[in-house]
Amino acid sequence: MDRVRLVALLEAVARGETTIEAALDRLRTLPFEDLEFARLDHHRELRNGFGEVVFGAGKSTEELIAIVRRLADASGRVLVTRVDADAAAALTGAVPGATYHPRARLVIRSDHAATPIADDTLLVVAAGTADVGVAEEAALTAEFLGARVERLFDVGVSGLHRLLAEHERLRRAAVLIVVAGMEGALPSVVGGLVAAPVIAVPTSIGYGASFGGLAALLAMLNTCAAGVVVVNIDNGFGAAAAAVRVLQRRR
Amino acid sequence: MDRVRLVALLEAVARGETTIEAALDRLRTLPFEDLEFARLDHHRELRNGFGEVVFGAGKSTEELIAIVRRLADASGRVLVTRVDADAAAALTGAVPGATYHPRARLVIRSDHAATPIADDTLLVVAAGTADVGVAEEAALTAEFLGARVERLFDVGVSGLHRLLAEHERLRRAAVLIVVAGMEGALPSVVGGLVAAPVIAVPTSIGYGASFGGLAALLAMLNTCAAGVVVVNIDNGFGAAAAAVRVLQRRR
Amino acid sequence: MDRVRLVALLEAVARGETTIEAALDRLRTLPFEDLEFARLDHHRELRNGFGEVVFGAGKSTEELIAIVRRLADASGRVLVTRVDADAAAALTGAVPGATYHPRARLVIRSDHAATPIADDTLLVVAAGTADVGVAEEAALTAEFLGARVERLFDVGVSGLHRLLAEHERLRRAAVLIVVAGMEGALPSVVGGLVAAPVIAVPTSIGYGASFGGLAALLAMLNTCAAGVVVVNIDNGFGAAAAAVRVLQRRR
Amino acid sequence: MDRVRLVALLEAVARGETTIEAALDRLRTLPFEDLEFARLDHHRELRNGFGEVVFGAGKSTEELIAIVRRLADASGRVLVTRVDADAAAALTGAVPGATYHPRARLVIRSDHAATPIADDTLLVVAAGTADVGVAEEAALTAEFLGARVERLFDVGVSGLHRLLAEHERLRRAAVLIVVAGMEGALPSVVGGLVAAPVIAVPTSIGYGASFGGLAALLAMLNTCAAGVVVVNIDNGFGAAAAAVRVLQRRR
Amino acid sequence: MDRVRLVALLEAVARGETTIEAALDRLRTLPFEDLEFARLDHHRELRNGFGEVVFGAGKSTEELIAIVRRLADASGRVLVTRVDADAAAALTGAVPGATYHPRARLVIRSDHAATPIADDTLLVVAAGTADVGVAEEAALTAEFLGARVERLFDVGVSGLHRLLAEHERLRRAAVLIVVAGMEGALPSVVGGLVAAPVIAVPTSIGYGASFGGLAALLAMLNTCAAGVVVVNIDNGFGAAAAAVRVLQRRR
Amino acid sequence: MDRVRLVALLEAVARGETTIEAALDRLRTLPFEDLEFARLDHHRELRNGFGEVVFGAGKSTEELIAIVRRLADASGRVLVTRVDADAAAALTGAVPGATYHPRARLVIRSDHAATPIADDTLLVVAAGTADVGVAEEAALTAEFLGARVERLFDVGVSGLHRLLAEHERLRRAAVLIVVAGMEGALPSVVGGLVAAPVIAVPTSIGYGASFGGLAALLAMLNTCAAGVVVVNIDNGFGAAAAAVRVLQRRR
Amino acid sequence: MDRVRLVALLEAVARGETTIEAALDRLRTLPFEDLEFARLDHHRELRNGFGEVVFGAGKSTEELIAIVRRLADASGRVLVTRVDADAAAALTGAVPGATYHPRARLVIRSDHAATPIADDTLLVVAAGTADVGVAEEAALTAEFLGARVERLFDVGVSGLHRLLAEHERLRRAAVLIVVAGMEGALPSVVGGLVAAPVIAVPTSIGYGASFGGLAALLAMLNTCAAGVVVVNIDNGFGAAAAAVRVLQRRR
Amino acid sequence: MDRVRLVALLEAVARGETTIEAALDRLRTLPFEDLEFARLDHHRELRNGFGEVVFGAGKSTEELIAIVRRLADASGRVLVTRVDADAAAALTGAVPGATYHPRARLVIRSDHAATPIADDTLLVVAAGTADVGVAEEAALTAEFLGARVERLFDVGVSGLHRLLAEHERLRRAAVLIVVAGMEGALPSVVGGLVAAPVIAVPTSIGYGASFGGLAALLAMLNTCAAGVVVVNIDNGFGAAAAAVRVLQRRR
Repeated sequence: MDRVRLVALLEAVARGETTIEAALDRLRTLPFEDLEFARLDHHRELRNGFGEVVFGAGKSTEELIAIVRRLADASGRVLVTRVDADAAAALTGAVPGATYHPRARLVIRSDHAATPIADDTLLVVAAGTADVGVAEEAALTAEFLGARVERLFDVGVSGLHRLLAEHERLRRAAVLIVVAGMEGALPSVVGGLVAAPVIAVPTSIGYGASFGGLAALLAMLNTCAAGVVVVNIDNGFGAAAAAVRVLQRRR
Repeated sequence: MDRVRLVALLEAVARGETTIEAALDRLRTLPFEDLEFARLDHHRELRNGFGEVVFGAGKSTEELIAIVRRLADASGRVLVTRVDADAAAALTGAVPGATYHPRARLVIRSDHAATPIADDTLLVVAAGTADVGVAEEAALTAEFLGARVERLFDVGVSGLHRLLAEHERLRRAAVLIVVAGMEGALPSVVGGLVAAPVIAVPTSIGYGASFGGLAALLAMLNTCAAGVVVVNIDNGFGAAAAAVRVLQRRR
Repeated sequence: MDRVRLVALLEAVARGETTIEAALDRLRTLPFEDLEFARLDHHRELRNGFGEVVFGAGKSTEELIAIVRRLADASGRVLVTRVDADAAAALTGAVPGATYHPRARLVIRSDHAATPIADDTLLVVAAGTADVGVAEEAALTAEFLGARVERLFDVGVSGLHRLLAEHERLRRAAVLIVVAGMEGALPSVVGGLVAAPVIAVPTSIGYGASFGGLAALLAMLNTCAAGVVVVNIDNGFGAAAAAVRVLQRRR
Repeated sequence: MDRVRLVALLEAVARGETTIEAALDRLRTLPFEDLEFARLDHHRELRNGFGEVVFGAGKSTEELIAIVRRLADASGRVLVTRVDADAAAALTGAVPGATYHPRARLVIRSDHAATPIADDTLLVVAAGTADVGVAEEAALTAEFLGARVERLFDVGVSGLHRLLAEHERLRRAAVLIVVAGMEGALPSVVGGLVAAPVIAVPTSIGYGASFGGLAALLAMLNTCAAGVVVVNIDNGFGAAAAAVRVLQRRR
Repeated sequence: MDRVRLVALLEAVARGETTIEAALDRLRTLPFEDLEFARLDHHRELRNGFGEVVFGAGKSTEELIAIVRRLADASGRVLVTRVDADAAAALTGAVPGATYHPRARLVIRSDHAATPIADDTLLVVAAGTADVGVAEEAALTAEFLGARVERLFDVGVSGLHRLLAEHERLRRAAVLIVVAGMEGALPSVVGGLVAAPVIAVPTSIGYGASFGGLAALLAMLNTCAAGVVVVNIDNGFGAAAAAVRVLQRRR
Repeated sequence: MDRVRLVALLEAVARGETTIEAALDRLRTLPFEDLEFARLDHHRELRNGFGEVVFGAGKSTEELIAIVRRLADASGRVLVTRVDADAAAALTGAVPGATYHPRARLVIRSDHAATPIADDTLLVVAAGTADVGVAEEAALTAEFLGARVERLFDVGVSGLHRLLAEHERLRRAAVLIVVAGMEGALPSVVGGLVAAPVIAVPTSIGYGASFGGLAALLAMLNTCAAGVVVVNIDNGFGAAAAAVRVLQRRR
Repeated sequence: MDRVRLVALLEAVARGETTIEAALDRLRTLPFEDLEFARLDHHRELRNGFGEVVFGAGKSTEELIAIVRRLADASGRVLVTRVDADAAAALTGAVPGATYHPRARLVIRSDHAATPIADDTLLVVAAGTADVGVAEEAALTAEFLGARVERLFDVGVSGLHRLLAEHERLRRAAVLIVVAGMEGALPSVVGGLVAAPVIAVPTSIGYGASFGGLAALLAMLNTCAAGVVVVNIDNGFGAAAAAVRVLQRRR
Repeated sequence: MDRVRLVALLEAVARGETTIEAALDRLRTLPFEDLEFARLDHHRELRNGFGEVVFGAGKSTEELIAIVRRLADASGRVLVTRVDADAAAALTGAVPGATYHPRARLVIRSDHAATPIADDTLLVVAAGTADVGVAEEAALTAEFLGARVERLFDVGVSGLHRLLAEHERLRRAAVLIVVAGMEGALPSVVGGLVAAPVIAVPTSIGYGASFGGLAALLAMLNTCAAGVVVVNIDNGFGAAAAAVRVLQRRR
C-alpha cells in the first residue's frame, strides 16, 4: 500500500507535476511506518527467530488454539510456553502433531527440524531435581530454536564432587545456562570454573525465606564470579533466548 | 540481703512466733527475685561467660568508659564491640591496658588470659578480603571468651580450588564460622564438606541488590546444606557466642 | 574403576615402562574425581548421616516412591520430609513398613533403631500449639538421626510462668531447638536462661504483618540473647540437622 | 468575624427584612467553617492538649524559632520534638527559659507546671540502654502533658530476672509504654504480665536485619499478648500522646 | 500441691527438725512455680479476662472441639476466633449452645451474659462495607468480654460528610476502634476529631499495591494524628482486647 | 429534616421568640451535616458521576444484588466492577438487563445511553494481549461514564514499529490510558510521543520478579517521561475515573 | 543535511536520471531519522513545552552550567530541578539572571514571562509545613510552564476543619496537586470533595515506618477516592508536568 | 613443591621401594590441590582474563596500593574498580603510570595495550547523562580487557527518535551493554531492535520509589524482549566481564 503511494508521488515528480519542494513536504509527513518500520518488523522476526514462540500465560485456551493454528499453518513449527495441563490437552487435541512436555510446561509442534544455529554446545546445568522443570523449559526451547543442547542435572553446591566430576563438560560448553533455587549459589561456582558466558536462572524452588525465588535471584545478582548474567525467576525460556542470541554470533 | 529476710522469717517460724499460715503468706508474696532469680542471674553469668562483653553501639562514650572501668576493676577483662575510631581513642585513653582492633572494631582489655573452654578448634572462614572485619570480630571475640581459633580467609566460591586446598583444615575443625557477603554461597559449600556445626554470618559487603547484606542473609537461610545455621548480618560477635555455646559442651 | 587406571599407571612406573615425568603428566590430568572426590563423597555421607533423608517437596510421587524404595533396600531406613497427605498415601502404600506423621508431614520407614549419637538430650521447645507441626518435624527427624529428644510445647512468652516452671529441663538440655511463630520472641527468652546452643526456628504461623513468618525470622535474627542461631522459616528438618551436628561432637 | 455575619443575618430575619427562605439559603451556603468548625478546632485543642507540641523535623531553624516564640508567648509552655543539637542551640539561645534534652532530642520551655491529668501512673519501660533516648522522649513528653511518669530501664528479655524483679511496679501502672529495639520482644512479655493498656514502641536500635527497626515493629504487631498496641518506629512522642489519651479518661 | 510441700517444710522448721540453713536451701531450689508463678498465672487470667478466648487458626477441628468443650464446662462461656465455615459447622454441632458468626468468623458459646466492664461506650468504626468482617470480629469480641459497643460503618474518607454527620457519636465514645483497608486514612481523620484513645486496625481489603494490608498498616503507623495506636492487619480480636484493657481502667 | 429545624429556628427569630444570641448558639451547635454537608454530598454525586459504580470485591452476592437493584431502580444504570463468574451469574439472573463482560469482570446494566462528557477521545492502549482484561475494564467503565473511547492493543515496547505505526492515533487522543505489565515501559514511551495526559496502569501480568505487578508499578512511577501519572495495579476502573475527571474539564 | 540528500534524490527523479524503482529503494533504506523523526522531535518539544527544563540530579556542576547557558541563549528561559545549595551558587554565579529557590531546590532563569497555558487555576495543596519544599517545586515549575497557580498549605487530615474551610477554593480549581507525607491521606479526602483531576504527590517526610515515603506512596495508590492519580515520591516537577498536560487541553 | 613430592613417590615406585598399593593410598590422600587444582587455578586466570582486575570497594588504601604494585610489577597492567577520589589520589601517587577516571571511578595502569579479543564491536548504550558513570565503567573495563568499544549515550525511551536514529549502529554491534536508571525501559526497547546479546545494567539513578535502582532492576528482569540478561545495580564492571565472555567465543 505504502509502495503505491510512494510510486505515485515519485511518478508525479518524474512527470514534473510535483515540485521538489512539494515532494519533500509529502515525504516528511508520510507516516513513518510506511517506510522504515514495516521493513524493520520483518527484519526483527528474521533475525531473532523468536517469531514461532508463543507466551502461553494469560491467554485463554481459545486464543492459544487460534494463534497456534495460524503459526502452524504459516511455518509448520510453533512452541508454546507456560501451558498448564488443561490447556495442553485442549491444544494437543486441536492441533495435529502438537505434543506436551508436562515438566517444562511446553507444547511443541514441529513438522521439520530447526535449522542449527551453531556447531558448539549449550550446556544446561540444574542444581536439584526440583529445578528440572525450569531447566527442561530452557533446554527444549533452545533445541526448538536450533541449538545443540546438553544437560547436567542434580549437581548442587552442597555436594561439590558431583559438579567437579563434570569439570570437562563444563569447560567444553560454548555457553551455559545454570538453573538453581534455594540459595542460588551454583552459578557463582560454575562462573569461576569456566570462561564461557554463564546465564543464571533462579527458580522459585525453596520455602520459607526463599520468598518465591527472591533469595536465589538476589544471590545470583550479587555473584562474586565476574560476568555471570541473570534472567527472571523460573524464566527458562528467557535463558534459552539469551543463549540463542550468544550462539547466533558464531554464524 | 534477701537471705537476711528469709532467715528472719524462718527463725520466727522456728521460734513459733510466726504461724505456718502466716509464713506461707509471706513466702508467696516475697518478691520472687529474692528467691530463685538472684541465683538464676548468678548462674546465667557463670555459665554463658558473656558477662564481660559490652555491646558498644548506641552508647555514648561516657557511658562506655564508665562501664568498661567497672568491668575492668571487677574482673580484669572486658571486650567492647562495635566501637568506632573516635570512641576507641577515648576508651583506650581512659582505660589503661585497653587496645583497639580497628578492622574488627573491638576494644579489648585483658590482664590475664581467658580460661580455655575446649581443646579442639574453631575455624573462622571468610570469603573475601572485604569480609575480614566481621571475621576478625568473630575470631577475636571467640579468643577472648577462651576458644582456640584458626583463620582461613579469602576462599570465596568463585575460586573453589583455594577452598578445596584447605579441605583438611575444614574437616579438622570442631565448629566453623563461615563469613561471606555478596551472594553468601560459601556456607553452603562448606556445609557440604564437613559434618561439624557451621555458623553462617552474612556481611553487608556488596552493592546494588545486595541491599545491605539481605542477599547473603537470604541465601544462607535457604542453604541446601542440611543443618547450617545463621546469625544476623555482620554479627561476628553473635557467631562467636554461638560457637562458644557449642564448644562449651565438651567440658 | 579409577583404581584400575591408577594401578595400571603405577605398575607401568614400577616396570620402568613409564618415566617419572610421563607419570607425573598423567596424574596431573586425571579427572580429579578419580582421586579425591569419590572418597570425599563417601566421607560426606558417612559423617553427616543425612544420606537417608529425602527432601520431599518438588518431587513427583513416582520419583519419591522410586527413591524411597532404593534407600529402603540399601539401608532399611529412610525419612521423607514435606510430604502432603496424597503423596503420603501413595508412599505408605508402595513401601512396606512406611508410616506417615501428618502433623510433621514426614514419612518414616525404619526396620531398625538408629545408632544413638549422644547420651545427652536435645530439647525441642514450641511456643504455641500451632507451632507443633514444625516442632514435631524437628523432633522426629532428630530421633530418626539418633538423637535423644525431649519435647516442651505451648510455653509462649505471653505466659512466662509456664516456661519458667520448666526451667530445670531447659537447663539440663545439651542443645535446644526453639520453635515460634508470631513475634518469635521465645528463643531470646530461652537463650537468656541457658548456656547450651539454641537453634531458633521461625514458623509461618501468624497472620497479617507476619508475612509468612518474616516477622518471626527477623526477630530471631535480631535476638538480644548472645549466640542464638537461626534456620529458615518452618525448617524443622534443618534445625534437627544442626542439632545433630552439635550432638555428634560428643562422641 | 463569622459571628458578625451571622448576627447581621439573624437581625435581618428578626426585623423581617429577610424572609425565612432567603435566610435558609444564606445559611446553607455560608462557608461551614463559620459555624461548626471554628468551634470544632477550639474543642480539638482543648481536649487533646497537644496544641503546645511542635514536630521539629522538617522545619528550618528560623521556622522553629518563630513558632516557639509565638506559642511561648501565648501559653508559656511549648515542647519541640526531634531537634538536633544545632537547632537546639539556636532555639535555646533565642527563647529564654527553653532547655534541651539531648538524649530525647526535645526542647522544652515551661513557665508553669502542667495540669495533672490523672492520679495514677504511666510506667515507661525500656529494654536496653540504647533504647533510652526514645524512652525519654516518651517520658518527658508525657510529663510535659501532665502525666505522672515512672521509668524502668534496661530490663530486656534475655535477662528476665531483672524484669520479673519489678513485677509489682509493672502491675501497679495504669498504662505502660514499652520501648524495645532488636527483636522487640519485651512488649509481649510485659503484655502477659499486666492487664493495663500496653503501648509498644519499636526503636531503630539494632543492626543488620533489623532494617531500621522493621524487625522490632513486625514483632510487636505480631505479639501473642492480646491487646498490645503499637506506634511507629522511634515514635516516643506518639506513645506519650496515646498514653495521655488513655489517662485522660479517668478525669 | 506446692502448698502441701511448703507447709511440710515450714512445719519441719517449726518442729526444729529442719535447720534454718537447710530450709533456706530447700526454698532456694524449689521450682519457683510453686511459689510465685502459680499465683501469677491465676492473677493473669483473673485480670485480663482473656482466658475464655481461643485463637482458632492453626488448630485442628478435633483440638478446637476438645478445648471448647473444656472451657464451656468450666465457665459456661467461650469465644473462638478465626473459624472457617467447615470448622464452625463441626464446632456448633459438637458444642450445644454455640453459634457461628460467619462474617466475623467467630464461634460464641455463652450461657450467661458477660459482667460489664465499664459504663461508657466503645465505638467500632469501619471505613467500607468490605471492612465489616474485621469490625464485627472486634465488636462481638468486645461485647463477649463485657464492653458496651456501638457500631458506625461505611464512613470512609472519600465521603467525609457521612463521617462528620456522626461527629457527636465519635466524641461521646470512651474509646474507638477504627477499621480501614485500602489507604487506611480513616484513623488519622478520627484521631483528629476526638480526644479519646483510638485503636487503628488495618484490613487486607484492597488490591494491587495494598499488598495484603501493608499499605493501610504503614499509613496508620505514620498517622499525623498524635497518639493513634495500631494493631496487626485484620486483627479485630486484638483491637477488642486493647479496648478492653482501656475500659477496665475505669472500674 | 434539617430544613424543618432551621425553618423553625428562623421563624422563632422572626417572631421575636428567640433572641439573636440564642439563635446564634443554636446554629453553632447544630450538627453541621444539617447545613453544608448534605448539599456537599449531593454535589459530590452530581459532579463526579461515580454514584452509579459499585466496587464488587469484598461484597457478598446478596449484598451486590441488593445494591444493584436499588441503583437500577433509581437511575436505570449501574456498573459493578471486580465480579467473578459465579457472582456475575447470580447478578445477571437477578437483575433484568444486566450483562457480564468476563474479561473485564464487569457487570453493566444500562437502560439508556450515558450523557457524553466530551467530544474528544480517550485512547486506551495495552501492551500485551494478557493486559487486555484490565484495559477493557478501563475502556468499558469510561464508556459507561460517557467518554468516547478508542482502543489500541498489543503494542508492547519490544516491537516498537507496531506502536509507532499508530503514531497519529496516539497524537489525536485528548487523554490516554496506557496499560502494561511485565517491565511496564510502555507509558514512558507513549509519554514521550504525546503532549496529552497519560494515565499509566500497571498490571499483575508477569511472573517471577514481577511480584504481582510491583515491577511495572515501580517502573511507571520512575518514568523518565515528564508528567505521566499512575494508578494502582490492575486498577482499570481508577484509570477510567481519572480520565473522566480530565475529560469533564472540557465541558 | 538529510534535506540535501532528499532534494538530490528527488531532482534526479525529476531529471529522469533515477528510475522510480531505484528511488523507492533509496527511500526505503534512508535512515528514518532523516524523514519523520527529526520532525517528531521538533513536534515533541513544541507540544510538551518541557524543553526548557533540566533535571539537575546526577549532573556535574560543569555540565549544568554548560546546559543552562545554552538553553538561556536559545530561549531566554530555563528551569533546573534538584539543585543543591553548592551547585546553585555556581549556577547563579555563572548565568546572569538566574535565581535560586532553596526550599524547592530550583534554579530559574527567565527573561520573559511564560505564555499562559490556561485561564483557569491549578491549586497546589500541601498537608504539612514539611511538605512545602515539594509543593513549591510543583508550584514554581507549573508557573514557569505557564500555569496559573494557587497555593493551599498546612491543611492535613488530622485537622479537617482547616481543609474544609477552604472548600470553595478546592472546588474552583481546574486541576489539583495534593502533596502529603506521613500517612498520605490528604489526596483521598480532597479527591472526595472535588470532581477535577487530582494529582497526588507522596513526600519522603516522616520517620520510622514511612520508609522514605513508601507509606504515603502506597496509601495514595490505594486511595478509595475514584480517579486520584499518583506520581513518584517527592516528584513535584512530575506533578507540575502532569498538571500542565491537563491544563493544555483547554486551549 | 607438590611436584617434588609426587616425583619422590613415583621414584620410590620405580625403585620398587613402595608397593603399588602403598602408592595408591598415598595418591588418594594427597591434598588434591597438589594435582588438579593448581592447574585449574592457572587455567582460570588464563581464560577469564580477569586476573588483572581489582575490586576496590571494601579494601583499605594501603591494601589497594600493595595489590596494585604487585600486579603492576607482574604484568604491567592493572585496573581497580570502585575507587573514590581520596583513594585514587593515593593510588595514582603511589603507582607510576596509574591514572584515575573519576566518572567511572576506575584507576587504570597499563604499560601496553590489551590483546584484542574480537574483531567486532561492543556497543555501550546509556539512557541518560546521569547513567554515564556506570556506562563508562563498563566501557573502560571492556577496553582494558581487550574489547573494541563504541558508545551511544543519552538515548532514553521518552525521546525514541534519538535512539531510532542510531538504529544501524545498534544493529551492527556484536554485543550490547544497555545502561539505564529510573524505569529501566531501554533494554526492552533495544532488545526488540537487535538480535545480538543484550546485557542490561540497572543504575541507582532516580529518586523516590526507584529505591536505589530496584525499580530499574525489576523492570529489566521482567523485560518483554526475549533473551535480555541482567547484572547487578550499577555493576558496569560485571556487564563488561559478561560482554568479554561473549566476545571471546569468536576467537
